[in-house]
Amino acid sequence: MSPKDLTIPTGADGEGSVQVHLDEADKITGAKVFAVYGKGGIGKSTTSSNLSAAFSILGKRVLQIGCDPKHDSTFTLTGSLVPTVIDVLKDVDFHPEELRPEDFVFEGFNGVMCVEAGGPPAGTGCGGYVVGQTVKLLKQHHLLDDTDVVIFDVLGDVVCGGFAAPLQHADQAVVVTANDFDSIYAMNRIIAAVQAKSKNYKVRLAGCVANRSRATDEVDRFCKETNFRRLAHMPDLDAIRRSRLKKKTLFEMDEDQDVLAARAEYIRLAESLWRGLDPIDPHSLPDRDIFELLGFD
Amino acid sequence: MSPKDLTIPTGADGEGSVQVHLDEADKITGAKVFAVYGKGGIGKSTTSSNLSAAFSILGKRVLQIGCDPKHDSTFTLTGSLVPTVIDVLKDVDFHPEELRPEDFVFEGFNGVMCVEAGGPPAGTGCGGYVVGQTVKLLKQHHLLDDTDVVIFDVLGDVVCGGFAAPLQHADQAVVVTANDFDSIYAMNRIIAAVQAKSKNYKVRLAGCVANRSRATDEVDRFCKETNFRRLAHMPDLDAIRRSRLKKKTLFEMDEDQDVLAARAEYIRLAESLWRGLDPIDPHSLPDRDIFELLGFD
Repeated sequence: MSPKDLTIPTGADGEGSVQVHLDEADKITGAKVFAVYGKGGIGKSTTSSNLSAAFSILGKRVLQIGCDPKHDSTFTLTGSLVPTVIDVLKDVDFHPEELRPEDFVFEGFNGVMCVEAGGPPAGTGCGGYVVGQTVKLLKQHHLLDDTDVVIFDVLGDVVCGGFAAPLQHADQAVVVTANDFDSIYAMNRIIAAVQAKSKNYKVRLAGCVANRSRATDEVDRFCKETNFRRLAHMPDLDAIRRSRLKKKTLFEMDEDQDVLAARAEYIRLAESLWRGLDPIDPHSLPDRDIFELLGFD
Repeated sequence: MSPKDLTIPTGADGEGSVQVHLDEADKITGAKVFAVYGKGGIGKSTTSSNLSAAFSILGKRVLQIGCDPKHDSTFTLTGSLVPTVIDVLKDVDFHPEELRPEDFVFEGFNGVMCVEAGGPPAGTGCGGYVVGQTVKLLKQHHLLDDTDVVIFDVLGDVVCGGFAAPLQHADQAVVVTANDFDSIYAMNRIIAAVQAKSKNYKVRLAGCVANRSRATDEVDRFCKETNFRRLAHMPDLDAIRRSRLKKKTLFEMDEDQDVLAARAEYIRLAESLWRGLDPIDPHSLPDRDIFELLGFD
């Protein structure tokens, strides 16, 4: 799809939106699709990778797609920085038919298949274009056919029309947050983005994961105010920091009490997401109310 | 400008880019224009607001434009969350001719004029559209005519085609970073974005501000490796945190040693930017090299 195929309706999802409309042929069928969003640096990739590992341990065939310019989403699954779809498309001058699956899909821990979409070219591109090209490529090579779970790991600082593209494919959205103002502010916007998308697509909100936080009081206060739901709590464990330095998931780290507890929490999260959760209908807060609800630090 | 006016060239700034091309009539003339970029949460707004305050103390007429969904860029200048351009445009159903300057421009500390562009509607919009509408509105009301300094405060996590829009107006780009991996990674992408833009526009890189960091060794190592320049260093001062809680710039805080030192650093930064700096030509690093240069902690 070249940018010229972008249809630019107005009004559908909001005035002034550059919409990367979903081509019916690009719909992902058969797999359960989750989109994991969160503020940059909040632990989205750590959560996505350990969640993918947990699903694989439950016997599911998993494909994780990183959608972040930093393209280190699958780093602990593969143990390395794999090339991005945009990198390899550039190498073949944007002729996808010249690519083989092994150019852009890499096997990670316990058979989890790993793809890094990468970010738009700095200063000139659009996140939606990158996600669209990646899904199209996976479909063309039938790499989504024999997959049980697809996880999109998506930068959630802005959630403009482009970075909302994974929400067009997802069944459920999971938000990763810490117990602080900035990440809860980003969560509020992500909820608004999913609610906007849910008017035209099947995606619904599953809930949030309170990550790298000792306490969860601010997250819980926000959830109460907005009818949102906290699915899991991952304390600020040094084991998780060490696992990233060792380029491994938690499921490959030496077993100590912390590691076992965190593994159990990821397995419990995967089970509940696979089983399916009671639907919820949260509402985002006007910005002013967030500043009042959470004060400033 | 409605999205239909978006011309979608390919190749100009990079394949697959949704370019919000600059309408000649929208060029900002007469003022020195600075674009301040940085990873979300790194202190861009604190740096921009205190820099605006410093320019005003040097006798310059200053206009600060926040370009971040969180729209708290000018919070310490005005002491409140002012309505965004997108908010007020929505109120008049996107008929800009019905707006008066006082609807979207607010006077802050020492006469600094403050505007919040706001972010794209969650999940559906484009940052470039929001910036374009804001500049067009300011031009229509001749609010850029009698201005010496314009400062864009811009979210730098992605710097896609949309969030690069302020670079079409800027003379100089300043990057705010801390002494950590994630914000230096974002800085590297911002440098790549500015260099891409500088092929078609006048914008050049001025340098970076090491913010809320005791040490600057990682920043300095990166600058050495990329021919970049550190312009200033703002240590992690409690006075700055307290000033945000009091919704004030540093220039209105009780004078203690820290406050006086930080004020002097902002004044020095403003003087050097106004005077103009020797041109530099930094290059961004391939991602792999950044992971190696800075490791992962």
